[in-house]
Amino acid sequence: MVVRGAPAIAITAALALAVEVSNLDFTGTPVEAASFVSKKLEYLVSSRPTAVNLSDAATKLQNLVSKTAESAKDASAVFQVYIEAAETMLVDDVADNKAIGSHGAEFLQRQLGNSKNISVLTHCNTGSLATAGYGTALGVIRALHSGGVLEKAFCTETRPFNQGSRLTAFELVHEKIPATLIADSAASALMKQGRVQAVIVGADRIAANGDTANKIGTYNLAISAKHHGVQFYVAAPVTSIDLALPSGDGIVIEERSPKELLNSEGGLGKQVAASGILVWNPAFDVTPANLITAIITEKGVITKTDADGAFDIKGFIQSAK
Amino acid sequence: MVVRGAPAIAITAALALAVEVSNLDFTGTPVEAASFVSKKLEYLVSSRPTAVNLSDAATKLQNLVSKTAESAKDASAVFQVYIEAAETMLVDDVADNKAIGSHGAEFLQRQLGNSKNISVLTHCNTGSLATAGYGTALGVIRALHSGGVLEKAFCTETRPFNQGSRLTAFELVHEKIPATLIADSAASALMKQGRVQAVIVGADRIAANGDTANKIGTYNLAISAKHHGVQFYVAAPVTSIDLALPSGDGIVIEERSPKELLNSEGGLGKQVAASGILVWNPAFDVTPANLITAIITEKGVITKTDADGAFDIKGFIQSAK
Repeated sequence: MVVRGAPAIAITAALALAVEVSNLDFTGTPVEAASFVSKKLEYLVSSRPTAVNLSDAATKLQNLVSKTAESAKDASAVFQVYIEAAETMLVDDVADNKAIGSHGAEFLQRQLGNSKNISVLTHCNTGSLATAGYGTALGVIRALHSGGVLEKAFCTETRPFNQGSRLTAFELVHEKIPATLIADSAASALMKQGRVQAVIVGADRIAANGDTANKIGTYNLAISAKHHGVQFYVAAPVTSIDLALPSGDGIVIEERSPKELLNSEGGLGKQVAASGILVWNPAFDVTPANLITAIITEKGVITKTDADGAFDIKGFIQSAK
Repeated sequence: MVVRGAPAIAITAALALAVEVSNLDFTGTPVEAASFVSKKLEYLVSSRPTAVNLSDAATKLQNLVSKTAESAKDASAVFQVYIEAAETMLVDDVADNKAIGSHGAEFLQRQLGNSKNISVLTHCNTGSLATAGYGTALGVIRALHSGGVLEKAFCTETRPFNQGSRLTAFELVHEKIPATLIADSAASALMKQGRVQAVIVGADRIAANGDTANKIGTYNLAISAKHHGVQFYVAAPVTSIDLALPSGDGIVIEERSPKELLNSEGGLGKQVAASGILVWNPAFDVTPANLITAIITEKGVITKTDADGAFDIKGFIQSAK
């Protein structure tokens, strides 16, 4: 959990491998170089099964190096192509996030009747600290703020690892965005008081039908948003969408250490909970598509034909190509 | 927050005053003694506006001492009556909790089709540490367990002050009740997996229509329970019911220190959250009666004529007298 946030994990993993191969004293053939990169990438993917961005990025890089190996004069030429591709990922991610921000801000404003005083709630961290820069859900919040239509951003603490109180709160204060921290548990009371018009979250993985795996508690917020008639948006790059996965039922949910709940500071501090208690600590939950108003991507916003309808994600991706 | 739990607050306050008057060198008349006790009780009530038990207990004790003063031979006779009444409160509270436990366990079993494997989720602490003994919601869990029909109790962490992970988890481990701790945020994922058939919580204050003020996050759980078709029970003594309050709209919600969210260990540990972030930290929320399946009291269970119906709490109390 030192590097976190699905997009950041993919980029950091790819860049770390780029550093490794640039320092490597490698004596094999171009095909052996491609195979070396491929195996390393496979190992990285196995470390975080929920994050589809990583697997998606790895597949693209694997295809690139194996194609390069066919005509490369030596191993270092293969590595060089890999290094440049990893660097391009970093640049593209920031550009994608800015596009998510502007599409999202524009869409929210329209959907909320051109309101000039939009308040939103976000969960976990989806900002500069979880992506290469700017952020996904937090990118939309940034864009609303710079457009002068954001009244306030609320962020949840995001237990048990406190990504909201540590990271999102830090980014919001740093960007001078009017912001207030709440306990995860206070979200429904906040919505009941009519203090937010929208919830915006990121995604670790989106299935072909729109079901979305994201930080534990996202599903809680989506149910509450539905109950209060508050809009619920997912903001993520299209690389988070896994068309091979028909629905969220197939998403593997990591379970994390009991220590995150037993000890303070998400497991780093002293023991708080009673000794001997068992713990269930799922890292993610799956929010079904029927609780999601729209999915905001760098290529535009995926909407439903009606509130109870389905997303046509496949159609959206094909027409966006 | 050293003493917490609505019933425990009332009893501790009454007993503390009993200790004070038993050590008092008081030279006034019986009427002055009654007035002294009355003013002290008024001050105690003002310290916790949400807890109706305290205000209810104080009124009873005030009436008792002022009636006693009319015929008492001296001030110490008034104090003696007060001390005995405070001690009786302690004994009665344990007996009431045991009655809540047995009524609740019987009712849950019947409502859940005589299941022998009931799993429940509870929030905050409502056990021996929040009452004079045995507990309200936790009393029902104890009774299910001793009746051999409890498969598992889940308790939430209950942020920000961790009453669940510190106190409820402690009581459950101590009583050898099979139990698992979860983050408040994981409750919806738990319900989605069908791992609990009921949520049982306590109450700080119940309005005449059944709207219930309880620890922040209770309302979250009630919305999620409704969404998943999970039963949602409130367990509390009838002294928690305030017939003078038509609905939950009139309930004053305490806001607590930002420090509980900014620092670890509910405010006692080191700073976790980003510096400069604002905090909204309501201590309670109000769960509307329409999300509550039934209210379990020491005098029996208050039910609705149908799922969407209203509670007839006034009728229940009149017929229970």
